Amino acid sequence: MIKVGIIGSTGYAGQELVRILLGHKEAEIKWYGSRTYADMPYASVFQNMFQLVPDICKGEDMEKLCEEVDVIFTATPQGLCSTLVNEDILSKVKIIDLSADFRIKDVDTYEKWYGIKHGSPQFIKEAVYGLCEINREDVKKARLVANPGCYPTCSFLSIYPLAKAGVIDMKSVIIDAKSGTSGAGRGAKTANLYCEVNESIKAYGVTTHRHTPEIEEQLSYASGEEAIINFTPHLVPMNRGILVTAYASLTKDISAEEIRQIYVDAYKEETFVRVLDEGICPETRWVEGSNYVDVNVKKDERTGRVIMMGAMDNLVKGAAGQAVQNMNLMFGLKETEGLLMPPVFP
Amino acid sequence: MIKVGIIGSTGYAGQELVRILLGHKEAEIKWYGSRTYADMPYASVFQNMFQLVPDICKGEDMEKLCEEVDVIFTATPQGLCSTLVNEDILSKVKIIDLSADFRIKDVDTYEKWYGIKHGSPQFIKEAVYGLCEINREDVKKARLVANPGCYPTCSFLSIYPLAKAGVIDMKSVIIDAKSGTSGAGRGAKTANLYCEVNESIKAYGVTTHRHTPEIEEQLSYASGEEAIINFTPHLVPMNRGILVTAYASLTKDISAEEIRQIYVDAYKEETFVRVLDEGICPETRWVEGSNYVDVNVKKDERTGRVIMMGAMDNLVKGAAGQAVQNMNLMFGLKETEGLLMPPVFP
Amino acid sequence: MIKVGIIGSTGYAGQELVRILLGHKEAEIKWYGSRTYADMPYASVFQNMFQLVPDICKGEDMEKLCEEVDVIFTATPQGLCSTLVNEDILSKVKIIDLSADFRIKDVDTYEKWYGIKHGSPQFIKEAVYGLCEINREDVKKARLVANPGCYPTCSFLSIYPLAKAGVIDMKSVIIDAKSGTSGAGRGAKTANLYCEVNESIKAYGVTTHRHTPEIEEQLSYASGEEAIINFTPHLVPMNRGILVTAYASLTKDISAEEIRQIYVDAYKEETFVRVLDEGICPETRWVEGSNYVDVNVKKDERTGRVIMMGAMDNLVKGAAGQAVQNMNLMFGLKETEGLLMPPVFP
Amino acid sequence: MIKVGIIGSTGYAGQELVRILLGHKEAEIKWYGSRTYADMPYASVFQNMFQLVPDICKGEDMEKLCEEVDVIFTATPQGLCSTLVNEDILSKVKIIDLSADFRIKDVDTYEKWYGIKHGSPQFIKEAVYGLCEINREDVKKARLVANPGCYPTCSFLSIYPLAKAGVIDMKSVIIDAKSGTSGAGRGAKTANLYCEVNESIKAYGVTTHRHTPEIEEQLSYASGEEAIINFTPHLVPMNRGILVTAYASLTKDISAEEIRQIYVDAYKEETFVRVLDEGICPETRWVEGSNYVDVNVKKDERTGRVIMMGAMDNLVKGAAGQAVQNMNLMFGLKETEGLLMPPVFP
Repeated sequence: MIKVGIIGSTGYAGQELVRILLGHKEAEIKWYGSRTYADMPYASVFQNMFQLVPDICKGEDMEKLCEEVDVIFTATPQGLCSTLVNEDILSKVKIIDLSADFRIKDVDTYEKWYGIKHGSPQFIKEAVYGLCEINREDVKKARLVANPGCYPTCSFLSIYPLAKAGVIDMKSVIIDAKSGTSGAGRGAKTANLYCEVNESIKAYGVTTHRHTPEIEEQLSYASGEEAIINFTPHLVPMNRGILVTAYASLTKDISAEEIRQIYVDAYKEETFVRVLDEGICPETRWVEGSNYVDVNVKKDERTGRVIMMGAMDNLVKGAAGQAVQNMNLMFGLKETEGLLMPPVFP
Repeated sequence: MIKVGIIGSTGYAGQELVRILLGHKEAEIKWYGSRTYADMPYASVFQNMFQLVPDICKGEDMEKLCEEVDVIFTATPQGLCSTLVNEDILSKVKIIDLSADFRIKDVDTYEKWYGIKHGSPQFIKEAVYGLCEINREDVKKARLVANPGCYPTCSFLSIYPLAKAGVIDMKSVIIDAKSGTSGAGRGAKTANLYCEVNESIKAYGVTTHRHTPEIEEQLSYASGEEAIINFTPHLVPMNRGILVTAYASLTKDISAEEIRQIYVDAYKEETFVRVLDEGICPETRWVEGSNYVDVNVKKDERTGRVIMMGAMDNLVKGAAGQAVQNMNLMFGLKETEGLLMPPVFP
Repeated sequence: MIKVGIIGSTGYAGQELVRILLGHKEAEIKWYGSRTYADMPYASVFQNMFQLVPDICKGEDMEKLCEEVDVIFTATPQGLCSTLVNEDILSKVKIIDLSADFRIKDVDTYEKWYGIKHGSPQFIKEAVYGLCEINREDVKKARLVANPGCYPTCSFLSIYPLAKAGVIDMKSVIIDAKSGTSGAGRGAKTANLYCEVNESIKAYGVTTHRHTPEIEEQLSYASGEEAIINFTPHLVPMNRGILVTAYASLTKDISAEEIRQIYVDAYKEETFVRVLDEGICPETRWVEGSNYVDVNVKKDERTGRVIMMGAMDNLVKGAAGQAVQNMNLMFGLKETEGLLMPPVFP
Repeated sequence: MIKVGIIGSTGYAGQELVRILLGHKEAEIKWYGSRTYADMPYASVFQNMFQLVPDICKGEDMEKLCEEVDVIFTATPQGLCSTLVNEDILSKVKIIDLSADFRIKDVDTYEKWYGIKHGSPQFIKEAVYGLCEINREDVKKARLVANPGCYPTCSFLSIYPLAKAGVIDMKSVIIDAKSGTSGAGRGAKTANLYCEVNESIKAYGVTTHRHTPEIEEQLSYASGEEAIINFTPHLVPMNRGILVTAYASLTKDISAEEIRQIYVDAYKEETFVRVLDEGICPETRWVEGSNYVDVNVKKDERTGRVIMMGAMDNLVKGAAGQAVQNMNLMFGLKETEGLLMPPVFP
């Protein structure tokens, strides 16, 4: 039984980790960390866990925590994990960081887009970017995994097959993404109140969203050329879900059938990436509560572009589900353990 | 492995049965029945099941179906199950009927409130009302189970302890219930369009809703006296969930602590009924996607009434979850098998 | 042209006052008061007012304000208005207080339910309870109007005809009310975040909600006997709207037709109270954005009770609209001026 | 007083026409046409109009209707208006067609994208495309106005200034649009049920949506070169609102300030197009219920593209409001008459 500690267990992603791990046969949570709710019953913060989680929230003492568990998930704001981690800790436990601290290989890029100084740049190189479908073998050997961002996961998996195949112009990629509101976190901000979000849609972080360099870096690796993209996120009045609609210009004369085949081939061994039937567009309602990502592609003969689409649950495959998938890989478990719950509809 | 057939698998309750049974270790679905979508892939109707359910929908041929499975769930409109069932079928398979056909013991009451003639009154007496927490032992021996209605399940479990204890006036009970829109089914009606339901709340079926006699009958059994109640359902702009707020006059001088203790005692052995801590009101968000019913009670010293509250997921404990719980009992399985998924939040 | 000042113009009710007054032919807003947003452009707080309101928010200096305007609306938390008002101010301007400070005639009751000391009890007697349909003549002469609460307005107007007619037991009244989330205000609280409210319904303030004594007092006046009631509010995932479902036992042998006629007669001169056709239940979607209250009643022959129902927009008839209706009466204008906008659907 | 007839008054756009015209000082509705609800009280279809509209719905007899009114609005499915209109009718009344029949000048393009034969191609040339801000003078003289589509209005007004200025590549334009569900109409379809739309977002009509050629045609006129674009609409779980996020490559070396100035200059005389302050993104909540379109633009120095954004209410500026604006122009009234209601928030 793998012993698990969660730092930041009382955010939305942290709570989703709890939900998933309660159904995981090989792991048990030993430490519910929370700065805000330390010493309070976990179930008083998330009443859905009443009678299911009798534990009391603890603080964020990583030195102590690393003695008691095998793996630590940090579902915390940017900058925290990188200041807590050190060689001693890494020698004792595996760490899966759900923040952005170790996602970007170039420390200058990180510091520029995030506006903070990196707390432990010496571990950036070692950290494995935990997009399981791409870096599976490296994850298996990792001590420190940088769990990908929600937008990057959905964006990258939607575009990856054509980027890898070298048939799209990596300077032409435009990603128009839409997210449910749980992605904004559980902090009490006026902008996230029910009446402010409900019955509205808006773009935000236009040209400046921090997930941009993460996506660019991964697309550059996949394509072997420098990707410079537009990424525009939008806030949608729903709890969960991310939808990506991405556009790119084709650089090769290639048929719609060939394009689709590239997707089918790319993901034919993957459990969690579902290439939908021709003509079916991904919809977030069909993946809610699950670790699946639904993708599809359409060629526009008139404009010479492809429209690449993906839908997933931002809290599962976009955060906690992928983190558990990484844990499974790191500990030699079945990759799908605890993650096969079907999507909940409606 | 129990072989399962579902008639009406393409409604919301039918699909929820599929979702739950996909995670059930002792059952497998052999027949996805659907009048509307016969011969179409199940996953083309519910895209969340893409790659999870490769089956094609079949029709509603119960004669054939009863040769192929061990248990049939009928998640169909009122009146269908009672016309399909017969002694030959019941001798071959167990039936769990999610419609109202066998819930009400008095056939005249059924025919008056439902406005249709009962198709097989000879089986009413045999049928067991499948509220597992109350009729557990009878369910275990049943061939034919009448799965309770969603409103009756939540209403009854919220009121049952005090009705049973004989401390409330059974003529004073008023149930004000609120339901998410999945309770209205998947039929294409203008009244259930997004723009008609969203941003609104309404009462409906005031004084005439068909769940009224079902609740009265069960409350009468529990209290040993005739219950005549007001039941008012409301439509709420959300997908899932039922909240019951019930009122009754106390007939005994009894303290708030004693009242709460009656609840605690009544459900202390129950996995799926959670008596919340003092002062915590049930909320539907905390049970979504799960088989739990959260209940609590508050005494009003000023008016001499109690306010009894309950929250559950109408598609799980109010339909498919309870149906599987009944199946587990009927086949001697662990009662909770397949039903322990934690509530999904947010 | 009446010159208007608003204290608390940057809450939801304050902003609704602005929206309504922008369409009012006889009034113009001279002072947009806001503690939180003082010195900021009003339209930067509420972007819908971009180019429509060029004003900068001012503070809450009532001494200065009363020199510049004819009427002050205080859309502020409980306790503020009563500490700001004094004889000098009242000699210069009329005040319409949207808080609860002057609604309850018994100061002990106020202090007990609200848990604060009243700041100026000497004005309670003078203050007129501004339920226009009931106290129209008194409002016309008032210097200080206590604008009714949202729940009380909808509850009272739903029950008033039968209370006045003396045909219901005023100790049997149970009010089960449901409100949209704008009623919770614009403060940044976790409980009011989108993901916490969306897809859920809950009761709150059970047996203890502060609107209880306000409703009881008004129902007691109307019926001439002491009303002691149960009032249970619920939070609904929608922006606007209040629905009241109220229950009471009949004390007289009276037919359904006679009951309906009492409603028709009670409101036949009223523009803003619409008695719906027989059998039509009020729904909040049909009053959104307007000053109308839709009411109806149903007799239950089985239980001897009536179900009285009302729907209105909590921000309009429940707050800003009624406040403007009071202003119109106080200044001798047409009562409906600025208030005849039809409900917005969908 | 202008006498108005509405064919299709019981759809969402038709009902919005009614709401707006009830507040219009110079127009009165004489004919509430409806195929589905003929002979039923209008207020029984839209209960918000109870006591405000006492009229009974009539049929669609245009021959009779044109004798009784000055202007006919056709808020009907594609293909109906073009089969009803003829020279005799046009000699008697003005027609404002809210369908697509007369929007596209090239009849082949119309027939190809809409898949139906045009009923009266002889009037296409005469018909004026009623985008008031662009074709104001022509609208004033028109007998037949083609009211623009919702997506085209928002898309075009968001892009127009830069297209007109000749600084963007008209082959690089990508429009990613998001619409509330009222745009899907009031027909009873499973896909538009509450539970199907709620908590989800999807793209639809990818590369094939019928508004594509309409947008291309208008952008081509504005820019003086052939525009070939990608247009991808999405369905958002909200009642009203369209948000456009459009991308294009700059063809000139032009600063962010100059780009913004082009917008400011383009719309400086327009009441209904609001160019937001620098850095403020349009949000649909700020325009709901109003005739305003909020636009803004952002230059991305990294990619050499501009992101052009617009938000409006699809039922107002995207349908009924713009239709009334056209009526005002056609009859020599103040262009803003009946249209200055502020946006409703929240």
